[in-house]
Amino acid sequence: MLEKTDQVTEDIGQVMPNRRIYLKMKSLKEAQSIFFSAFNFTNFLKTEVISTTESLNRVTAKPIFARFSSPNFHCAAMDGYAVNAELTFGVTLDQPKELTIGKEVFAINTGYPLPDNTNAVIMIENVVEKEGKIEINKAVYPWQNVRKVGEDIVATELILPPNHRITPYDIGALLEGGIFEVEVKEKPKVIIIPTGNEVVPIEIAQDRGIEKGQVIESNSWMLSSLLNTTNAICEKWPVVPDEFRQLKTTIQKAVESDAHLVIILAGSSAGSKDYTVLALEELGEVLVHGVTIMPGKPTILAKVNNKPVIGNPGYPVSSVISFEQFVLPILSQMQGFVYEERPKLKVFLSCPVPSKLGIEEFLRVKLGQVGKNIVATPMPRTAGSITTLTKAHGIIRIPAQREGIEEDEQVEAELLVPQAEIFNTIVIIGSHDLTIDLLTSELKKIDPFLNISSSNVGSLSGLMAIKKGRAHLAGTHLFDPETGIYNLTYIDRYLPEIPVKVVNLVIRHQGLIVPKGNPKKIKSIEDLTRSDVLFVNRQRGAGTRILLDYKLKQLNINSSQIKGYDCEEISHMAVAVDVLSGRADVGLGIYAAAKALNLDFIPIAVEEYDLVVPETLWETKKIQTILQLINSHKFKQAVEKMGGYETSKTGMVKR
Amino acid sequence: MLEKTDQVTEDIGQVMPNRRIYLKMKSLKEAQSIFFSAFNFTNFLKTEVISTTESLNRVTAKPIFARFSSPNFHCAAMDGYAVNAELTFGVTLDQPKELTIGKEVFAINTGYPLPDNTNAVIMIENVVEKEGKIEINKAVYPWQNVRKVGEDIVATELILPPNHRITPYDIGALLEGGIFEVEVKEKPKVIIIPTGNEVVPIEIAQDRGIEKGQVIESNSWMLSSLLNTTNAICEKWPVVPDEFRQLKTTIQKAVESDAHLVIILAGSSAGSKDYTVLALEELGEVLVHGVTIMPGKPTILAKVNNKPVIGNPGYPVSSVISFEQFVLPILSQMQGFVYEERPKLKVFLSCPVPSKLGIEEFLRVKLGQVGKNIVATPMPRTAGSITTLTKAHGIIRIPAQREGIEEDEQVEAELLVPQAEIFNTIVIIGSHDLTIDLLTSELKKIDPFLNISSSNVGSLSGLMAIKKGRAHLAGTHLFDPETGIYNLTYIDRYLPEIPVKVVNLVIRHQGLIVPKGNPKKIKSIEDLTRSDVLFVNRQRGAGTRILLDYKLKQLNINSSQIKGYDCEEISHMAVAVDVLSGRADVGLGIYAAAKALNLDFIPIAVEEYDLVVPETLWETKKIQTILQLINSHKFKQAVEKMGGYETSKTGMVKR
Repeated sequence: MLEKTDQVTEDIGQVMPNRRIYLKMKSLKEAQSIFFSAFNFTNFLKTEVISTTESLNRVTAKPIFARFSSPNFHCAAMDGYAVNAELTFGVTLDQPKELTIGKEVFAINTGYPLPDNTNAVIMIENVVEKEGKIEINKAVYPWQNVRKVGEDIVATELILPPNHRITPYDIGALLEGGIFEVEVKEKPKVIIIPTGNEVVPIEIAQDRGIEKGQVIESNSWMLSSLLNTTNAICEKWPVVPDEFRQLKTTIQKAVESDAHLVIILAGSSAGSKDYTVLALEELGEVLVHGVTIMPGKPTILAKVNNKPVIGNPGYPVSSVISFEQFVLPILSQMQGFVYEERPKLKVFLSCPVPSKLGIEEFLRVKLGQVGKNIVATPMPRTAGSITTLTKAHGIIRIPAQREGIEEDEQVEAELLVPQAEIFNTIVIIGSHDLTIDLLTSELKKIDPFLNISSSNVGSLSGLMAIKKGRAHLAGTHLFDPETGIYNLTYIDRYLPEIPVKVVNLVIRHQGLIVPKGNPKKIKSIEDLTRSDVLFVNRQRGAGTRILLDYKLKQLNINSSQIKGYDCEEISHMAVAVDVLSGRADVGLGIYAAAKALNLDFIPIAVEEYDLVVPETLWETKKIQTILQLINSHKFKQAVEKMGGYETSKTGMVKR
Repeated sequence: MLEKTDQVTEDIGQVMPNRRIYLKMKSLKEAQSIFFSAFNFTNFLKTEVISTTESLNRVTAKPIFARFSSPNFHCAAMDGYAVNAELTFGVTLDQPKELTIGKEVFAINTGYPLPDNTNAVIMIENVVEKEGKIEINKAVYPWQNVRKVGEDIVATELILPPNHRITPYDIGALLEGGIFEVEVKEKPKVIIIPTGNEVVPIEIAQDRGIEKGQVIESNSWMLSSLLNTTNAICEKWPVVPDEFRQLKTTIQKAVESDAHLVIILAGSSAGSKDYTVLALEELGEVLVHGVTIMPGKPTILAKVNNKPVIGNPGYPVSSVISFEQFVLPILSQMQGFVYEERPKLKVFLSCPVPSKLGIEEFLRVKLGQVGKNIVATPMPRTAGSITTLTKAHGIIRIPAQREGIEEDEQVEAELLVPQAEIFNTIVIIGSHDLTIDLLTSELKKIDPFLNISSSNVGSLSGLMAIKKGRAHLAGTHLFDPETGIYNLTYIDRYLPEIPVKVVNLVIRHQGLIVPKGNPKKIKSIEDLTRSDVLFVNRQRGAGTRILLDYKLKQLNINSSQIKGYDCEEISHMAVAVDVLSGRADVGLGIYAAAKALNLDFIPIAVEEYDLVVPETLWETKKIQTILQLINSHKFKQAVEKMGGYETSKTGMVKR
């Protein structure tokens, strides 16, 4: 999968017959400075006068000065008695003084205006009230305990500078200062033009579904949602097919409209059907074509009719990264406010990550706090998979001049979720099982604030993660051929110095996953050696792989006899998808995976899938909540319902 | 001002005649847990089905599973030729092979569906095209360069868990998965009820302005803007006067409506006209009255008709702090998503800040970056001044069990502005002078993006700040009695290892500040020894203090002969206020301070007020802009106009 991704987003750009190359390839920094400096944004937007109460997040066009002072009168800052301070001068403990209520002093509440000829307030705590009079034994000085006129805002003083983004607090200050209308920059208008013959608008997909070869037009909705924080007005245009003339005239119409920014979706790379760059070359000036980022490389930055026009890549993740690097910042530049970057955190990667030299990679990661460490687990890097973004907690940027990041190197991650979510993340590393996904969704129901980040790296790597203090839980189903015992002997071997608890999650059925109807009539492990049978295997260290090798040994089958033995996938679902797609005729995996894709299943063995927990974490809320869930009747029922599982040992603490 | 503030927000709660006390005072943590746990928020909100495209930031009511797989067909991951992989088996460099286009291989673009009977794509880079045929010298394996069905989303798999806040990315994933409608929590409805006889709605203020004793009703607009990020629908009700029955019936109507949360503005403290707590006691249960935070103490947390009802303090800053601590979190709890806290930064304070034991203070600060250090300058602590929030860059929380924060202690500041804004702040630490305030306001005019944060801690502390790398500029007027030279000799002594530039800001007149008409006929320093004269001094290290001591030495006057020599103030204005209020008969300070309070001034000396700049910063835009301003005719004119200053050396680089 990793390989494939690299190709998807990398190789497009190389010299090849009947294709163009990226003539204006730039690094991210170069591209941004070329693009942003190509326009003069002062006065790019008109201004408009709107009600102050409607002005949240808008940007001031001029300095704004107060019309009223606040307060506009001297008022009591305390409850007590208003007085002319001079009447109290010289008063001390030895020389107390009586003052007549209603004549010399006047009862007053906080916030109320001072009576004429008074300039101070004696705190109620400092008076002894006798009928008609008060006695004091302490002087007050002029304006003591008084909020003077203009203490907060003095009429004519500057409330807000120009190019200031209006906050809720500002709205309070503006109204206090008697400013009921403000002149602000107009909202920038953005036109989004989806393209592609295969693309189906959602209205149609909603009615008729989609046919083979069609794709739902979702990018424009995702991007317009990303505009949410920018004040921009978004206008979505109908999908344009891959037809040069039509694309060109559509772009022309867009740049000649009142829009301030035009974005063309997909068709931005250098393939034979990617017309955007040609159209833009004819209509105006292409400033950048191709940015050395991954995902996001097929980005076009152009200037047409003095307006910024952007060719946005078609793969959803590339589309988002490119959009966030070029569209969002330019919209804040137009309005003249500082573009707000995401908060960052120092993290450790749960495994080393190689990366291609010369490419700045935006690596999506899951984040969880284990002890003092914040652990980042890399997610699939495919540009075509939007779910890698929806499930990510952060993004780590791997600089172009680096060939990757070491496992024990601390790096910065940009946060995609509230930081609290990370502290509430339970890091499960190890073998994949669908009941982990079930755990994830059920957990949300009993505690919406907890969430699970699970990485499927195989049982052994899971134990290693526990060893390094990089996981709360490891999911493992390691069969020991010598003893016939699951997991415990491996734990003794690999985690001798770390006291852990071991809890059974499920007993599950492993078996051969074959296409519906089992066309090749596969009955047993022996059939894997047939020449007409293509097998798909799991990666080394995976429990399923060990189980297979054990069975082969029992049957004296040499792995070289099995076609596809060396072709590896890293999850049960991946194996099932291979069988569904015809990439393989058979794979070894769990029933639930076969069922999910409506494939047939031939049981081979039952195995114990356990969770390993460091004892130090056993009492934590995270772990206890998980255990409570695992032991619940509801969870066990749900597991049984999936089929291919037994829950007779579920929740049992084996050690 | 500091004194006054403390009283404003502190003393309200003490026992005093004709007032109630806070019976249910709690710490912030206590108050939050009491309040949040008093309600069962599961099913507190109904659910509704809305279009996926409208669902940004809404919260899922149920787990959402995919209906379609994405992609729903095998498609080319690369541009090239689709082929049945078996046709390429055995092909190598030595054994190349020709394949017929349209028969054995089919030209295909990225993203397009594979023709029937093909299962792989040969990259265009790896073929030599001859008419009608292509030659290859490398085999492909089945499904190489192919995006398989379900690579991103497999039908039936979980796209979103329940209680998940929908992001732009999620919208993309939902649409890809064929989910066009989602079931989400309804929007929580909030009713805001302003109260107070003095409060004027903005519509009226806009038409008629406001009269003495009136206040514009701005809090409700500020708070409803703060709801912007919460999905909440806000209903503002008309202002209710300070009248018990009317307030009570209004609250009753509100809690019996379909609202989920009710907020009453002002009248939440324990003053004789604060009816809210009484009304709530009669209508339901008051859980908390009074929270030990500053600002924000007069907060009421109640439960009426099983709904949360909040009494929100009247002073704008108290109102905001209370709102952010109780209203925003409870709205996210209702919907079941994690409340997003502000990003935090580690900072140093520009001066030590004492704080009241037992009170958790929310200290507003300006932030500036000096080298690696981020320096926080405390702002006025008055609860009544909304502009302290609009101008603040961050908030530092001083825990209740602390009596303050030391100068060299690193603390956390919550960011109120984009981090970038902090880099535009010029930090000036040192002796106070009114021309620094002038500099601040003039700077905004020539560069709205730059701003100055200045703290007045005396000349010596200013030099120390430069030494510690905590200031861009230090304002100093240190007179050296030995040499008669200003500043330079002190710089040699205290900053030997730090190369600095020294620029004159102004020459200013120091003199004796006495009440209007100079009742005690004070003429010279000698008069300070008179037994009928009470003096007020400046703090140790202040240039003015050193000047005085020098004069005393010249005149062989012993400081013990001066009544009030040990009574210290930390700014010129503070000294002037003491004289104005009668606390002292005379103080030493600058003309501008005397003038500001309309006091008399007897000149004693002229002194050189210089700015010290580390050479490393000299060329920076910040410093150069400041220098340009100081040298401008406009600035010098403005200084002359203030009186008590000479600008003959202004802008001169003395070193």
